[in-house]
Amino acid sequence: MSEFGKVWAEIAPVGRAAGGGYLRYALTAPELTLRDWFRGQAAQRDMTVTEDGNGNLFAWRAEPWAPGTVLTGSHFDSVPHGGGYDGPLGIVSAFLAVDELPRGRKVVVAAFAEEEGGRFGVPCLGSRLLTGAIAPEKAAALRDRDGVTFAEALGYSPAGADPRIRNLSAAVELHIEQGRALTVPVGVASAIWPHGRWRMDFTGVGDHAGTTLMADRRDPMQTFAFTVLVADREARLAGAHATMGRVQVEPNATNAIPSLVRGWLDARAADTGTLDRLVGSVVREATERASRDGTGVEVTAESVTGEVAFDNALAVRLSDLLGGAPILPTGAGHDAGVLSAHVPTAMLFVRNPTGVSHSPAEHASDADCEAGVEALARVLEALT
Amino acid sequence: MSEFGKVWAEIAPVGRAAGGGYLRYALTAPELTLRDWFRGQAAQRDMTVTEDGNGNLFAWRAEPWAPGTVLTGSHFDSVPHGGGYDGPLGIVSAFLAVDELPRGRKVVVAAFAEEEGGRFGVPCLGSRLLTGAIAPEKAAALRDRDGVTFAEALGYSPAGADPRIRNLSAAVELHIEQGRALTVPVGVASAIWPHGRWRMDFTGVGDHAGTTLMADRRDPMQTFAFTVLVADREARLAGAHATMGRVQVEPNATNAIPSLVRGWLDARAADTGTLDRLVGSVVREATERASRDGTGVEVTAESVTGEVAFDNALAVRLSDLLGGAPILPTGAGHDAGVLSAHVPTAMLFVRNPTGVSHSPAEHASDADCEAGVEALARVLEALT
Repeated sequence: MSEFGKVWAEIAPVGRAAGGGYLRYALTAPELTLRDWFRGQAAQRDMTVTEDGNGNLFAWRAEPWAPGTVLTGSHFDSVPHGGGYDGPLGIVSAFLAVDELPRGRKVVVAAFAEEEGGRFGVPCLGSRLLTGAIAPEKAAALRDRDGVTFAEALGYSPAGADPRIRNLSAAVELHIEQGRALTVPVGVASAIWPHGRWRMDFTGVGDHAGTTLMADRRDPMQTFAFTVLVADREARLAGAHATMGRVQVEPNATNAIPSLVRGWLDARAADTGTLDRLVGSVVREATERASRDGTGVEVTAESVTGEVAFDNALAVRLSDLLGGAPILPTGAGHDAGVLSAHVPTAMLFVRNPTGVSHSPAEHASDADCEAGVEALARVLEALT
Repeated sequence: MSEFGKVWAEIAPVGRAAGGGYLRYALTAPELTLRDWFRGQAAQRDMTVTEDGNGNLFAWRAEPWAPGTVLTGSHFDSVPHGGGYDGPLGIVSAFLAVDELPRGRKVVVAAFAEEEGGRFGVPCLGSRLLTGAIAPEKAAALRDRDGVTFAEALGYSPAGADPRIRNLSAAVELHIEQGRALTVPVGVASAIWPHGRWRMDFTGVGDHAGTTLMADRRDPMQTFAFTVLVADREARLAGAHATMGRVQVEPNATNAIPSLVRGWLDARAADTGTLDRLVGSVVREATERASRDGTGVEVTAESVTGEVAFDNALAVRLSDLLGGAPILPTGAGHDAGVLSAHVPTAMLFVRNPTGVSHSPAEHASDADCEAGVEALARVLEALT
């Protein structure tokens, strides 16, 4: 078995559900097991582990926060029943790439907290806190589906921004590619599409499904359903992406008209203008429909991220270093996108033959993953 | 405070949630508390309590199952965040009406299990078991949302049909009216619309919401949403009722296209032909849409009940007895509908000023409830 295969096999069973997907929500037992594994990997390499008071873990090859340090890493947390590569591949590859560096290089391996937003609703929560992109009081109060706050899960109030982030000379996140856009083992990111999450609360009048005349109904499920279809249509027309994959219903009983249907709109586009027009159209049509349905709709932007253009000179340099690796954009958000506002940042993508991600079917070949480790090692060698 | 008000106040706090609605699922703590209260009420009246091996409770004024006994009562369980009157009003009224009968009358107060189907999915489960309308093995294996079977919740395997049901000479269930159809305090039921529940499993391909091209998607939320709108439209065209108020999504994450959307169709109509055509139209349009969306749809009839016409002579007799009380149909299912296939059965309705039910806003006035008790007492006096 390759070195990659051996290390990968250590974490593969952690948090794997019956269907093959992963339940590795931030700061739950499986993710805490992976964080312990991270400490073990660091100890094997005589790396110093620190936490930043925001749930992010760092393993330092040299003095923590020494000026000129290069950061690499990713996240452990998954979406519900997600794949095993999205996140952990970047951490495993980071440790293996560090093994190939001469000693004394200033490099740090990072595991960021709550990248998916799968537990507390705000993606890249750890990197946003570290860089000051979200106020620690706001992050502390975010709740999971059981009502547990982020501060409670963390065990303390998050510390917020650390100005020493400026001491990093570069950051490089390796990640599985997620859109069938890469036909060679390794590529380099150019940009992340602007994207965001909007919570839409459709309110109506809860009533008996059997006895309430159709004409008397104020059924928010109707308004929600209309909005689901509109979001899909508008995204297709705009050449953008829109998804309503999460819904909560009250009371969610077969024989009751709902009083509340809460749906989340995930929308992404190549530029901010297109994204704004897309979301504007969906909200306008939903609001008009609500007035016809006798329902209400309230929209809350839970997180909106503008376009991230990674450091172009750095991307070109890495592409050259890797023998002309393709440079491509992505619709997926990443901690690297958050870091890029403060540190010259790049991403390496590893080929995903089917493009499937956020699903148990997500997969990359061992050979491509090993090529990713080699590429990351060459990049870190050149940057440190 | 009136006698009704005093007794009502004893049970009003049990299982009441913060929003004012009730969480009284069958065989959970609040419903078990109400069953203990039932035993206490029976003891105060020197009534013998029996269980029928199906979760149904009976309090007998005379010898259990004596030929010629008249049954009255209803159920304790609620839909999630339902009102407090739907069910318990019929049990409270039964005990208070019994108090007005001369001693020695052969009457039994019943509390049926899982009338709403809110926990195990099949409504009127207790009365169906008692009358043999569902096989005990099938009922035993029904699971709640946590995977607990009905047999596990009951503590034993249900016994199934009891032929002594034929010893009853009549059954009368008092219930809050649920459709704004009653403008005087008390009415008499004529019939229950045919109705049923169909589970619709919409299957697709789970994937990343940010990176999957719209053209590559097989998103079952689209097919579900289309079906929600179709069900509403077809019900309006048919003069029937259709509701899709319950949904489960996998993985139900903001940034993931779902792999499964499971929705329940509750459909009701004045006659079986209309109901069959309504459900047929919805299933046909859903299937056609699924083929366009690249998704699948599988439909399972979880429970289907034909039209129940209550004993017409009995209804007319009770209407006369109550000074010409109006006789009206209902779209809601009831244990009385199940019993009516075996025993001459009637229902009394108590006025509901707004018609709202299966909601915290469900309400009947104390004066109307007291009128209901008086009406039920007169009916039992005449029938026993």
